[in-house]
Amino acid sequence: MLQTIAARTAEAKELSAFCQLARQLARVGRDFRSRGWALGTSGNFSAVVSVEPLRLAITQTGIDKQALTEREIILVDENGRAVKGPGRPSEEVTLHLTIVRVKRAGAVLHTHSVWGTLASEHCAERGGLNIEGYEMLKGLQGIRTHQHQEWLPILENSQDMKALAASIEDALAQHPDCHGFLLRRHGLYTWGQDLVQAKRHVEILEFLLELVGRKTGMNG
Amino acid sequence: MLQTIAARTAEAKELSAFCQLARQLARVGRDFRSRGWALGTSGNFSAVVSVEPLRLAITQTGIDKQALTEREIILVDENGRAVKGPGRPSEEVTLHLTIVRVKRAGAVLHTHSVWGTLASEHCAERGGLNIEGYEMLKGLQGIRTHQHQEWLPILENSQDMKALAASIEDALAQHPDCHGFLLRRHGLYTWGQDLVQAKRHVEILEFLLELVGRKTGMNG
Amino acid sequence: MLQTIAARTAEAKELSAFCQLARQLARVGRDFRSRGWALGTSGNFSAVVSVEPLRLAITQTGIDKQALTEREIILVDENGRAVKGPGRPSEEVTLHLTIVRVKRAGAVLHTHSVWGTLASEHCAERGGLNIEGYEMLKGLQGIRTHQHQEWLPILENSQDMKALAASIEDALAQHPDCHGFLLRRHGLYTWGQDLVQAKRHVEILEFLLELVGRKTGMNG
Amino acid sequence: MLQTIAARTAEAKELSAFCQLARQLARVGRDFRSRGWALGTSGNFSAVVSVEPLRLAITQTGIDKQALTEREIILVDENGRAVKGPGRPSEEVTLHLTIVRVKRAGAVLHTHSVWGTLASEHCAERGGLNIEGYEMLKGLQGIRTHQHQEWLPILENSQDMKALAASIEDALAQHPDCHGFLLRRHGLYTWGQDLVQAKRHVEILEFLLELVGRKTGMNG
Repeated sequence: MLQTIAARTAEAKELSAFCQLARQLARVGRDFRSRGWALGTSGNFSAVVSVEPLRLAITQTGIDKQALTEREIILVDENGRAVKGPGRPSEEVTLHLTIVRVKRAGAVLHTHSVWGTLASEHCAERGGLNIEGYEMLKGLQGIRTHQHQEWLPILENSQDMKALAASIEDALAQHPDCHGFLLRRHGLYTWGQDLVQAKRHVEILEFLLELVGRKTGMNG
Repeated sequence: MLQTIAARTAEAKELSAFCQLARQLARVGRDFRSRGWALGTSGNFSAVVSVEPLRLAITQTGIDKQALTEREIILVDENGRAVKGPGRPSEEVTLHLTIVRVKRAGAVLHTHSVWGTLASEHCAERGGLNIEGYEMLKGLQGIRTHQHQEWLPILENSQDMKALAASIEDALAQHPDCHGFLLRRHGLYTWGQDLVQAKRHVEILEFLLELVGRKTGMNG
Repeated sequence: MLQTIAARTAEAKELSAFCQLARQLARVGRDFRSRGWALGTSGNFSAVVSVEPLRLAITQTGIDKQALTEREIILVDENGRAVKGPGRPSEEVTLHLTIVRVKRAGAVLHTHSVWGTLASEHCAERGGLNIEGYEMLKGLQGIRTHQHQEWLPILENSQDMKALAASIEDALAQHPDCHGFLLRRHGLYTWGQDLVQAKRHVEILEFLLELVGRKTGMNG
Repeated sequence: MLQTIAARTAEAKELSAFCQLARQLARVGRDFRSRGWALGTSGNFSAVVSVEPLRLAITQTGIDKQALTEREIILVDENGRAVKGPGRPSEEVTLHLTIVRVKRAGAVLHTHSVWGTLASEHCAERGGLNIEGYEMLKGLQGIRTHQHQEWLPILENSQDMKALAASIEDALAQHPDCHGFLLRRHGLYTWGQDLVQAKRHVEILEFLLELVGRKTGMNG
């Protein structure tokens, strides 16, 4: 019976954490959509609810982010199976889980901006994009100076989520210091210890992608 | 008398469906205006209230979309004649009805963005715009991979609505798989099974028009 | 005594009209500021309260448009002297009064956008900007087809308001069909029979200035 | 005891002034973030609460400006030490204090826009950026005509705040008439007699940076 009580307490705690993160994910999603970083049904956002066992709150697949609420956020287990909430999780749940596991991330955010897509296409053959010398880089976790070189790997896009997860795992192993990566002609993935940090990384990287895009005339 | 009751029930149902769609159309219109896709009195938006007999909820002509409410939405019949609501329907009601009929669409949305206008001018001589390889294309109904080629036909603009409707009907017959088309120096038409899908198509196509516009230096 | 009653009734009517227009001007001003068309304290907006005697509601000078309310709108007479409201009217009140008189306008709106400023500089030597063939032109009062040529005169900027008013009067005489004009390296003036029409003209002309600016590579 | 009462009255006054300015700083910060001028945790904003002794209200370090409230504003003394409020002040507090002292400013605002960063990089070798002939310049304090030349010095960026403060002091001595300056690949600093004026200067200079950036093709 003590076990039952402990289990119920843990469940209640998990539920409470889930609800709070779901509301925060919804707020972040609405904001990103209003900035043009998640138009259509693009973009998907997740945050870790518990580590052991792994539970991830993630946006449903095919959802308009303009009026995103906590009701469109699903709880999934370590295999991406829904354990709470209606609908199916984002098709890219496998990618989120891979990043959570490899980077021990507390939140993973994926945006589709015009400038991110342009950069992912323009620099694809070089395999990535170097961003260097900007004060804004200091907003990335662990960076203390503008004299930092950030390498943003660009990975070939695919509809095979297992293959894509493997290629992400490779890229993260090869570039252990990167704070995000681009999928070619697709968009940006970044993460953080928690949702606040991951949101900051999106804003910084999207800013830098626009900056570098305008500077190098990717728009011409 | 039973007939009367049935008729009244049908009427009440139609009225209720009309009111709900009118509110949704107004919300979509205000959002598109705020994004710069329906400035001035440009843009017009419709949704099917009933199929048999055909009833279409559509924005009034000459309306500022910034403060659009359900009061500026009119109910028209299959000939574009107002059956409910004040004012006249959009002049382009014939085009909406044509698309509804040919594509069996549940909603038709027409936007006037800067990037859409630029693309419609820049690629007019080629008769259309090819968009290919972008993940964002997956948001279009029936598309399962980024390795899709979307052909967006560009039609000559005209003030003769009957002629324009005929040329739209031709284009839709020639390009049965397209999800939208551009009128030259005018703007985008797209549609969907329902308003949610049509709105998604606007966001995706407007995103892609900006992307392709910046990439190919249409702005230079 | 009947005269007194009549005078008081007229006063009450004027006051009521002023209050309503002041609220509308404030709403328009806040919206234009949010679109980046009236940053800093730039932009000034007016609407005719009564024609005989002429009374104009106009924004105060030096006001941030972000939180513009009816309290920052002043009532001035035909000489631009304040007859109601605190502060001084916009320095450009003489220009507004000139346009009201010459065009029999019911409202005059002046915006400072990036694209308007670029166009006013780029095309200054030609004395104006030709805009032609766009559907959006149909939103200008009296225009029925996209096959319209709109000539937007560009006038040399000046701090001498009397001289500037005279040069505006000349330009309006020379181009009686124009719907607006640009002051060089300064911004757009447009007007309408009422505030609704004038607001529509701002949105249409600002849209077209961005369009033409991007198309002709004014930004390069 | 009279001294005690006087001291308490002064304290209460300071507290009241601090609370009011903190709310205003928060509102300005949220607005700038929404315009894309303070993404990530970039940007920091301050206003003088009392001159003798010097007390400055300033944003905390590492704060997301999207939901900025008065609770994230700290009161610091003339050495930048927190005397009220949680957390640490912005790392750049020394720069704010230098500008307050040298320019006798009542408010100092620092933004990170894409266009400001581009200009700060593009014109760095010339040591600054000349902006000339635009009506918008009249919004800068003391400027009465568009025929004004504004020199915006560009300073090398550094993580050594003391060295940066010294280089700012030098630049302000060399260019006593400037209304702001850029840090290379970093962003804009401007100030004003009070927060209203400083906010106006940000809007004007950010507008002009976008204008000059587009005109000279810094984006290509």
